[in-house]
Amino acid sequence: MLSASDRAALLAAVGEDGLVLDEGGRAAYETAARYGGGRAAAVVRPRTAEEVSAVVGHCVRNGLAFVPQSGNTGLALGSTPDASGTQVVLSLDRRRAPLAVDAADRTVEVGAGVRLSALNAALAEHDLCLPIDLGADPMIGGMVATNTGGARFLRYGDMRRHVLGLEVVLPDAEGTRLTLSAGLRKDNAQLALRHLFVGGFGAPGVVTRAVLEVHPRPRQTAAAILVPRDEAAVLDLLLAFEREAGPFLTAFEGMSRAAVVRALAHVPGLRDPFQGGEVPPYCVLVELTSSLSPREGRPGLADLLEDVLADLAEAPGGPLADALLGPPERMWALRHALSEGLRACGPVIGLDLSLRRADIPRFRAEAAAMLARDFPEFEACEFGHVADGGVHFNLVRRNGGAAEPARAEQVREAVLALAVEGYGASFSGEHGLGRAVQASYDRFVSPLIQAYSAAVVGVFADASPAALRLGPPQ
Amino acid sequence: MLSASDRAALLAAVGEDGLVLDEGGRAAYETAARYGGGRAAAVVRPRTAEEVSAVVGHCVRNGLAFVPQSGNTGLALGSTPDASGTQVVLSLDRRRAPLAVDAADRTVEVGAGVRLSALNAALAEHDLCLPIDLGADPMIGGMVATNTGGARFLRYGDMRRHVLGLEVVLPDAEGTRLTLSAGLRKDNAQLALRHLFVGGFGAPGVVTRAVLEVHPRPRQTAAAILVPRDEAAVLDLLLAFEREAGPFLTAFEGMSRAAVVRALAHVPGLRDPFQGGEVPPYCVLVELTSSLSPREGRPGLADLLEDVLADLAEAPGGPLADALLGPPERMWALRHALSEGLRACGPVIGLDLSLRRADIPRFRAEAAAMLARDFPEFEACEFGHVADGGVHFNLVRRNGGAAEPARAEQVREAVLALAVEGYGASFSGEHGLGRAVQASYDRFVSPLIQAYSAAVVGVFADASPAALRLGPPQ
Repeated sequence: MLSASDRAALLAAVGEDGLVLDEGGRAAYETAARYGGGRAAAVVRPRTAEEVSAVVGHCVRNGLAFVPQSGNTGLALGSTPDASGTQVVLSLDRRRAPLAVDAADRTVEVGAGVRLSALNAALAEHDLCLPIDLGADPMIGGMVATNTGGARFLRYGDMRRHVLGLEVVLPDAEGTRLTLSAGLRKDNAQLALRHLFVGGFGAPGVVTRAVLEVHPRPRQTAAAILVPRDEAAVLDLLLAFEREAGPFLTAFEGMSRAAVVRALAHVPGLRDPFQGGEVPPYCVLVELTSSLSPREGRPGLADLLEDVLADLAEAPGGPLADALLGPPERMWALRHALSEGLRACGPVIGLDLSLRRADIPRFRAEAAAMLARDFPEFEACEFGHVADGGVHFNLVRRNGGAAEPARAEQVREAVLALAVEGYGASFSGEHGLGRAVQASYDRFVSPLIQAYSAAVVGVFADASPAALRLGPPQ
Repeated sequence: MLSASDRAALLAAVGEDGLVLDEGGRAAYETAARYGGGRAAAVVRPRTAEEVSAVVGHCVRNGLAFVPQSGNTGLALGSTPDASGTQVVLSLDRRRAPLAVDAADRTVEVGAGVRLSALNAALAEHDLCLPIDLGADPMIGGMVATNTGGARFLRYGDMRRHVLGLEVVLPDAEGTRLTLSAGLRKDNAQLALRHLFVGGFGAPGVVTRAVLEVHPRPRQTAAAILVPRDEAAVLDLLLAFEREAGPFLTAFEGMSRAAVVRALAHVPGLRDPFQGGEVPPYCVLVELTSSLSPREGRPGLADLLEDVLADLAEAPGGPLADALLGPPERMWALRHALSEGLRACGPVIGLDLSLRRADIPRFRAEAAAMLARDFPEFEACEFGHVADGGVHFNLVRRNGGAAEPARAEQVREAVLALAVEGYGASFSGEHGLGRAVQASYDRFVSPLIQAYSAAVVGVFADASPAALRLGPPQ
C-alpha cells in the first residue's frame, strides 16, 4: 500500500533493515497486546533521533498517517494502526541507545526502545531500579507516552514522577527535535512542556529518549493476603497499614472472589493460598518492601508485618478477619494470574477505572446491583490498586464465551456511565489513551477540554499521530 | 491611575472591600518578599472563582495588565507589579474557601488563598500534612504557580507531585473557568494540561483552587549535623544515608562555612552547635523522619541514626569526619538562620541553581576559584538541598554593603554562565519564574523552547499576566 516514492524516502531514512513491508514481518507490529489491532502500510524502525526525525518529517510532508509504537504492550490501542492498511507504524524498538546509568545522581538516560527488563538489569548493577511493576515488559518510550502506573504506584508513583527530561521529535514538516528539560530534579526555569508528552500517547510528538530518576533496589520484602471483615473494612485496613507501615507499604492490591476463583481454576501450577477452603468475597495482597539491609538485632520487615497484623487481629470488631502469610513470590503469583484466569473464560470486557478510594466499596456494590438487575449474564471479576483508587473492572459472561457485540457495548457503557457520571471516576486510570477509548473520550471529556487539548497539540504537531482524535468531532 | 470605567467595573466585580486603591493599603501587595517590587494601579481581591473570572475578563477586554498574587512570598518577582503604576495586582488572599480534608482519600481541596500553615493546621486534625518545608508561609495558589520544592523535596517532591486537580481562570475576554483533572491519583483520560499551570507563574491562567494529595504526619524525627572529611565526601555521605536510611531520609542540607559563620554572628539567640570551636568548611544537616509510631521494644529513628553514624565513623578513611547530635529543632534553627545571617551583612545576590548532584562539589570549587580570581570582593555564602542538586548560591561583599549595580550584574552573569553553560544547571531550581529572572530566561532558554512556550500559553491566554515575557523578544 506504500507508494513508490514513500517507499524510497523511508528506505533512504532508515535503510533496508529498518523498513518492514512483508505481511509476516509486520504482524507483530499490527497486533495489539490483548485484543484488536489493524493493518499497516509498512513498519519503519529508525535507530536514531535523526532517523526518527527524517521519517516523521517525510510522513507529515506527504500526508502519510503514522502511529508511534514502543513495546506495543498497551491495552488502549494507542500503538497499533487502524484497519485501513494506510498507516505506517513508527517503531522505536531499535532505538536502544543510550542506556547510561549515573549512580551518584540516581538517574538514567535511556532510549525509547529499551525494555523495562533491560533497564532494570542495567540498574541492578548499581543496586538501583525503576520500580514500576506491570503485567508486561514494555519499552520506555511507550511507558512515557502512556504514563504507566502499576501495582507499586502507592509508593513510587507513575512514569510522570520519574521523567526529569525528554527528547522528542515533533510531527511537523521538519521532524523538529526538541530537548525538554535538562534532566535535573529541580528545574523551574521554563514551563513544564515535557508533561504534555508524558501520557500524550505520541500526539504532541514522539518520545525518543528520557532521563529518569530511579530508586535504591529493595533488599527486604514481606507480603500477606488479608481477608477483610467485610468490604467496607478494606479501607480501614489500608488506613491502618498506611499509619503503621507507611514508609514500607509498596502494594495493596484488592482481588474479588470472582477473579481469584477463575485464576485458581484455569492457571496451571498456581498454588491455592486458601488450600482448597472457601475463597473469601474479597481479599487484599499487601506488600512491604525496604531498601534497607537487614541488620543484626533489628527487627526486619517480616516482624513489622506480623506486628501490624497482630494488632489488627486483637482489635475487637476490627477490620481483619484473617491473614495468610507466605513467600511474597507466591502471593504475587496469584495476583499476576488473575488476568490469565479471566481470559481463559472467554473475551474480557476490561474497564480501567480510577476512583476516589473511599468510593470504591460503594461503587462496587452499586455496579454489582446494576449488573444483577440489568445484565445478569455478566459477572464483574475485578481487581485493583485500592490505595490509588485503581479498579480493573473486568466483565466476563457467567457461562463463558463472547457476548453479542451490541450487548457487550451496552454493559460497558452502563458501567462507565455509573463510574464517570455517578462517581467522578476516570475511564482510563493507567492504560492511557488510544483508539479503544475514543468513544469514552468523546462522551466524557468536556468539549472545552477537548478543544484546548487539540489546540495545545496543534502547537507542536502539524499532523498528529493517528491513534486517537483529541478534538471535538468535526 | 485607574480609569473611572475600570474602577467602576472592578468595584462591581468584587465590591468596595475587595478593591484597594490607597497607597497604604496597596503597599504590602506592591512590595516583594525580599528585594524589589513596584507600584500598582490597584489591588483587586476577589473572593470566589466567579469574581476572579469577572476581574480577569474585564482586564483582558480592556487591555489592563494584571499580576496574579497569592502569598507574595516568592523570590523571583513573579507576583509583584512593575514600576509603571499601570498594572493591577489580582490578589487571591480572600479566596480562602474551600478547605475540605478527605482523610480516607488522603486528599484536600483547597482555595488558592489558604496559607500553608492554615492548611497544615486543618490537616493536623487528621494526622496528615503537606510536607513541603519552606522558609516562608506562602499561599497555595502561589505554591502551585511556582511549583515550590523546599528542604524535604528528596522525600516528598515538589508541588507538582501533589497536585491532583486544579481550577483555573484563563486570561481571555470571558475569564473562562476550567477544571483540569478531577482530583484522582491515577487519571490518564486526558492530556495533563494542569502541569502547564503548575510552575506556570500564572501565565496560562490563574489558579483558584487545587486538589492535593497529602501525607501522614511524622511522629518521629532525628537529626544530626555531619562534618564531611572533605567536600567530595559529601556525596558519599548522601549515598550512604540513601542506602542505610533511605525510607526515612527527609533532609540533607549542605551549609558552607561562610553562611554558617554569618548566621552565628548576626542572628540573636542562635545556639552554636560547634560550641565556639572552629566551623568546618562545609557541613550537612541530615534529618530522618517517620510517620510510624515508636513501638515498645523496637529501635526508633534516633537509634537508626546512631547506627548509621557509627558505621560511617568506623570506616577507615571514610567520608565522615565528625557528627553532632542534638534536638532536631536546634539543628533546623541553624539552617533556617542562614538567610537572615546573610542579609544582615548587606544585600545578597541570590542565585537559585540546580545541578546534577555529583556536579555540586566540582562546580563549587570552580566557582570559588573564579570568584577569587575575577571578583575577589565577593564571597559565596551558599547552602543547598544537596540531595536534589539544589544550590542557593548567594553572594555577598566580603566587606559588607551593596555592590555597584553593574558589578553585581557582572558577578551574577559570570556565575550563571559557569553553572548553566558549564554544568547544564538550571538558573531557577525552585524559585520559579518572574521578572527577576527575565534576563536569564532570555539568555539561557533556547529560542525554540521560548517560542513553543509562548505559543502554548497563547492557546489559553489572550493576554498573559505581566510578570515575565515568555516568548523571544520582538
